[in-house]
Amino acid sequence: MVRWEPGAGERLQVAALELYASKGFEQTTAAEIAAAVGLTERTFFRYFADKREVIFGNQELFQKAFVDGIDSAFDGQAPLDIVAAAVISASGFFPPDRLPYSQRRGEIIAANHELQERELLKMAALGTAMAGALRERGIPEPAATLAAESGVTVFRVAFAEWLGSDGGRSLGDIERTIFAELLALAGR
Amino acid sequence: MVRWEPGAGERLQVAALELYASKGFEQTTAAEIAAAVGLTERTFFRYFADKREVIFGNQELFQKAFVDGIDSAFDGQAPLDIVAAAVISASGFFPPDRLPYSQRRGEIIAANHELQERELLKMAALGTAMAGALRERGIPEPAATLAAESGVTVFRVAFAEWLGSDGGRSLGDIERTIFAELLALAGR
Repeated sequence: MVRWEPGAGERLQVAALELYASKGFEQTTAAEIAAAVGLTERTFFRYFADKREVIFGNQELFQKAFVDGIDSAFDGQAPLDIVAAAVISASGFFPPDRLPYSQRRGEIIAANHELQERELLKMAALGTAMAGALRERGIPEPAATLAAESGVTVFRVAFAEWLGSDGGRSLGDIERTIFAELLALAGR
Repeated sequence: MVRWEPGAGERLQVAALELYASKGFEQTTAAEIAAAVGLTERTFFRYFADKREVIFGNQELFQKAFVDGIDSAFDGQAPLDIVAAAVISASGFFPPDRLPYSQRRGEIIAANHELQERELLKMAALGTAMAGALRERGIPEPAATLAAESGVTVFRVAFAEWLGSDGGRSLGDIERTIFAELLALAGR
């Protein structure tokens, strides 16, 4: 019989991030995370395939937020405008009250080479997914990939700025500014 | 006493790529690669730290080609123009007669998930290095990262097109076209 603990997934996640931040990601075991919230290691592995998944488990939903934005653009928009709208709309994935969590997560990733690589691969997968969604809308290559990768770059730069901020500006606001900088660079 | 075999590094590389392509990267051992050119496994490891390094060992020189281009740009150029010139000048790293080697390398990477990840990380490192070189020239963030990442995207798209071609156009030529497409997307 599989026991279901209400809110256990979220409690495990909070405990995991605290331990990763204080002890280091490598040095923390799944058993310790579970023990910190009065659960067993076995329960941990019902919620997360491994320690990394606590940090990267939401990749599918994250990616979907961007792809949905591309799918729902109206016809005739320029590829870069579709991507800009999708990136800004996906910023709803990171509401202001998520900033402290995202900052802690960012610090944990910055302290571990393997997690940094994993984060880079997540960004590469996002670019591939957005380019695919643009092609589905009939936007040919290389425009689809160029626009998608530009969107990933803007997201990465804006997200880093958001993490380094006190939350005074929303992620979407910062993204708007960075998109404008990109267009200015290209001479628009 | 360490014996030096003239041309052994290059012979090992050619043999390795043939075996990776025919047997698969995972299924090939260092001993087999060495045996294919009449050398010992120990000699293989004098030239390459591991099987992956046969494919990725030139990363430092590769990156240097781009960074040198940024360092040698004249003052007052716009960031994206500096990057475009650097990317096109680095295409000298891939002369036309290197295309068959690059194509075989590309096929080996496409067939192996771990190698694909390694290639993505190589591209991420290139972007970081170019952004650093731009900052050294006094170009502030976010312009440095936006320009550098745009350069990486153009390189990736152009390189894929070059690999898929019969070599009728040089890599530098293809890069010029893709840069123009990027600027057109941004409305320049």
